[in-house]
Amino acid sequence: MDAPNGSQDTEQTLDSQVKAFFDSAPPLQNMNDIIQKLNHFIQLNSLSSENGIGRRIVCVTSGGTTAPLEQRCVRYVDNFSSGHRGATSTEYFLKAGYAVIFLYRRGSFQPFCRSLPDDPLLECFEAFEGLNIQVREAYSKALKTAIVDHHAAVASGLLLKLPFSTIFEYLQMLQIISKPMKDIGPRAMFYLAAAVSDFYVPWKDMVEHKIQSGSHILDVKLVQVPKMLSVLRKDWAPLAFCISFKLETDSNILLNKARGALEKYNMHAVVANELSTRKEQVVVVTIDDKITVQRDKSKADDDVENPLIKLLSQRHSAYIEDSKRTR
Amino acid sequence: MDAPNGSQDTEQTLDSQVKAFFDSAPPLQNMNDIIQKLNHFIQLNSLSSENGIGRRIVCVTSGGTTAPLEQRCVRYVDNFSSGHRGATSTEYFLKAGYAVIFLYRRGSFQPFCRSLPDDPLLECFEAFEGLNIQVREAYSKALKTAIVDHHAAVASGLLLKLPFSTIFEYLQMLQIISKPMKDIGPRAMFYLAAAVSDFYVPWKDMVEHKIQSGSHILDVKLVQVPKMLSVLRKDWAPLAFCISFKLETDSNILLNKARGALEKYNMHAVVANELSTRKEQVVVVTIDDKITVQRDKSKADDDVENPLIKLLSQRHSAYIEDSKRTR
Repeated sequence: MDAPNGSQDTEQTLDSQVKAFFDSAPPLQNMNDIIQKLNHFIQLNSLSSENGIGRRIVCVTSGGTTAPLEQRCVRYVDNFSSGHRGATSTEYFLKAGYAVIFLYRRGSFQPFCRSLPDDPLLECFEAFEGLNIQVREAYSKALKTAIVDHHAAVASGLLLKLPFSTIFEYLQMLQIISKPMKDIGPRAMFYLAAAVSDFYVPWKDMVEHKIQSGSHILDVKLVQVPKMLSVLRKDWAPLAFCISFKLETDSNILLNKARGALEKYNMHAVVANELSTRKEQVVVVTIDDKITVQRDKSKADDDVENPLIKLLSQRHSAYIEDSKRTR
Repeated sequence: MDAPNGSQDTEQTLDSQVKAFFDSAPPLQNMNDIIQKLNHFIQLNSLSSENGIGRRIVCVTSGGTTAPLEQRCVRYVDNFSSGHRGATSTEYFLKAGYAVIFLYRRGSFQPFCRSLPDDPLLECFEAFEGLNIQVREAYSKALKTAIVDHHAAVASGLLLKLPFSTIFEYLQMLQIISKPMKDIGPRAMFYLAAAVSDFYVPWKDMVEHKIQSGSHILDVKLVQVPKMLSVLRKDWAPLAFCISFKLETDSNILLNKARGALEKYNMHAVVANELSTRKEQVVVVTIDDKITVQRDKSKADDDVENPLIKLLSQRHSAYIEDSKRTR
């Protein structure tokens, strides 16, 4: 049976929105360099593994995207996100044996660095005998963890970091990443924790120069960013295990919105989090159940990402096994 | 003679815009703490000096302000500015003998730190024998300068750093700073290098919760931020020496815009800079002349802020002398 006309129309609309978005986007800089790094990373992690079928690879997206309002960008609409969720999750994914592609907003939190103060360089060090520098005792442990663990992950080829700023960069990079990820089938996971702009100004509609401030009202009209989650699931990497996030400030609508996103974008799970409690608990919404995950409050340094990544890793393993059986 | 009615009307409009802005702004956190630090800083630097009349004090503003679109801020309009100009100028003001109040955007460039890479902590250090950390040789000098010089300036009471993010925080803090600065008369300078939002959404007009993304077009209407430069010159600190900046991407309109700002806001000088050449040269526009200031290209590490701050410091000295004669 053919899909009803309404659904066909929707697909055609989405396809044309996606085409309009990518046609409008300014070309990505360093594209060849990114592709080369990615291919190398995925090859490397597909060879070596305990079970001989290659390591699981997750793409963690983190931080907020910007939507420029001017081509020579002075003003832009930004989506607030510290990147704490993505950075912390990356640490637990590495611990769970994954290789991680960390697609992050420039300046957002980095894995292993979240115990450091806002401006670590100026706060963690002090001058010593006038001319030398030394680590302040209070930050000694956090600083060692940050630098030693971070460098170890990068040096061992288990962590690949790729930065973005604009929504144009983010979605182009996500598409590029999905190509080699498609080739590894169900071993790939997308963990889409970035706060992605819902609206953007098409590049060609933007004024080239700075918007002048003569008038009393600035009226900015933004159009909707096409729902790339659908495209990722349907075309870019159909076998990858896909997790998206739903953040709301209003807890009354959160679970319904999460369930809606699960069905609409055909995700394997949606992590529902409310702004004020997001570091304490989240709800993992799947087609069959809703699982509340909480950090262990008896341990001062436990994170909600600890049980969350354990759960998702188990589900991903089960998904890989299922895929083998149905192949 | 009375001012013509038109001008009175304009003033009344500005007064009511200013009132509306501050009435709308969410109250500043840590206000008492900021006031206490400020008063201490200005007192300290008013006692000690070579000439017995107290040190000159400059308030350098730096980085861009944000205009939130939601009360529980997820989305906001941001003004791009790295804060490089403000951070570099602060170093040269300190060298010229000023005490500096550095009012900066969280996460923007800090004085003495501009030779460091984007993510200094992870790029400047390396793991050493597995468990310790050491400075990478290539960054050794830049890192020592950053930490030693920065801490020396703060510890000696010559540098006070105050961070902001939103336009509401920025303008409230500028008003608070102007109170003790007013008391020191012409010894005070304002060097307003921050990229301040021209438009904002009044706090009471904002939705409390996250804007929902159901519709295809997001239409954001922002109103003009009142021209606080006028208020600063007229009411907040009428004797302070005031420098503002004009940044344009279109060089054809730059000097006219700078001259316009000089007259409109009654500045002592406007520094005109074009986005693409701003690190090489600027034009200082005063009522009498236009002076092009360039960095010394024969020296690899010279900055345009070096001759710029020398020029402004001379002009400020002349202004202080003038004020004595006319008192």
